[in-house]
Amino acid sequence: MVTVKDQEFTAHHGNIRRLAEEIKAAWPTPVVIVHGGGSFGHPVAKKYGIAGGFTSDRQIPGFARTHQAMVDLNAIIVKALLDAGIPAMSVSPSSFIATDDGRMSNVDFEIVGRLVVRGVLPVLFGDAVLDRKKGFTILSGDQLAVRLAVSLGASKLIFGVDVDGVFTSNPKLSPEARLIDRLEIEKIDGFVKIGESLSTDVTGGMLGKVSEARAAVGEGVKVQFVNATKPDVILKALKGEPVAGTILTG
Amino acid sequence: MVTVKDQEFTAHHGNIRRLAEEIKAAWPTPVVIVHGGGSFGHPVAKKYGIAGGFTSDRQIPGFARTHQAMVDLNAIIVKALLDAGIPAMSVSPSSFIATDDGRMSNVDFEIVGRLVVRGVLPVLFGDAVLDRKKGFTILSGDQLAVRLAVSLGASKLIFGVDVDGVFTSNPKLSPEARLIDRLEIEKIDGFVKIGESLSTDVTGGMLGKVSEARAAVGEGVKVQFVNATKPDVILKALKGEPVAGTILTG
Repeated sequence: MVTVKDQEFTAHHGNIRRLAEEIKAAWPTPVVIVHGGGSFGHPVAKKYGIAGGFTSDRQIPGFARTHQAMVDLNAIIVKALLDAGIPAMSVSPSSFIATDDGRMSNVDFEIVGRLVVRGVLPVLFGDAVLDRKKGFTILSGDQLAVRLAVSLGASKLIFGVDVDGVFTSNPKLSPEARLIDRLEIEKIDGFVKIGESLSTDVTGGMLGKVSEARAAVGEGVKVQFVNATKPDVILKALKGEPVAGTILTG
Repeated sequence: MVTVKDQEFTAHHGNIRRLAEEIKAAWPTPVVIVHGGGSFGHPVAKKYGIAGGFTSDRQIPGFARTHQAMVDLNAIIVKALLDAGIPAMSVSPSSFIATDDGRMSNVDFEIVGRLVVRGVLPVLFGDAVLDRKKGFTILSGDQLAVRLAVSLGASKLIFGVDVDGVFTSNPKLSPEARLIDRLEIEKIDGFVKIGESLSTDVTGGMLGKVSEARAAVGEGVKVQFVNATKPDVILKALKGEPVAGTILTG
């Protein structure tokens, strides 16, 4: 919800500014932000087939451009946070993370952790990264957020999405869709039919988020899905106040 | 020369575009670019005293803002290169480099090296970085460029500056200043009086460059100072053609 999904390279400045103010209201809660690609990274990555890995030299400019599109979106978000009075700092995933067949292994998050201790809010993002097997690929913000939460020993991982949480089916397509307050990770495979995201998303929509989030629950991180398009929901979630949404449990 | 030095946050788009075209004309020569802060990073870093290290929480927003100023300048340069047809990709130093009392040690440049092999041109920059002793500091583009050249086994390190090379004194202040074609690193201390940069520069001007560059010469890298404000000088230097300037020798 930080971009207008069906308009390429269009940030949702209203949502970004409001979320920056909410984070400021909860500050100095130690926070790390990871944002996705929305209408910046996804269309470029899709056009050049970056997620599928290297097959042709013609993709190389697209790999570079996907990263720059994400840097551009990131700059808008970081500046909104700085303007709100938060010392936010861009941390660029592809500068220090390479994946192995699409998955992160042995990544050193020391700098991110030390920024938090120093009172800085690191802002990372889904990114075009080098991959040891595929040449390059897309590292989703979801995978990155889960790995960061586990690695830094976060108490909570909040997914801010554009619906109220995880539903029994896609609430944008199905009128019978019912919000699931608490979702046991053992029951996910048999129970939930989670629709794909409605717009261009190279990294899996809600299904991808829930699937990635299981690893965090297994490591004792409280995982919460909340609606970041509704005012004060992220603020309450940051403060630990009750809020509508889905909590993943072990 | 990528910024207008005495105008804050003002890129020199003409120079940037011309240099991008020169790099394109020499492409696919494997290149890594490191640029400085000019009128973007330096004034912010100076205002908040970032180079001197952490002394007060009031510097924290300045630390974050110094980095973002550099990201902004970097984005202008990367986009000019992309527009010229070079697959240039931003690599953010503070995302993977922390210094120890101002100096880099044991930095892993694997990703930068693999980007070059993949046909990408990595674009790094002087940056506000965490420091193990001082809390944070400024890592100069000069120190970074030398370490990169040595670490990646570069054959040549070209310093593009706004004068013809290293002079016997500051050519902007002294009419007797004489260009030194070849400079032996053993003779630097006794012979050269190198003026400080005329404008705001938190990382040492020409003296800092020559001082840093000695380490590269010692490791067998050919180090060349040339005037990047003059057309085709960088192009010729990249192609190994003769060009006015200063060569550092062992």
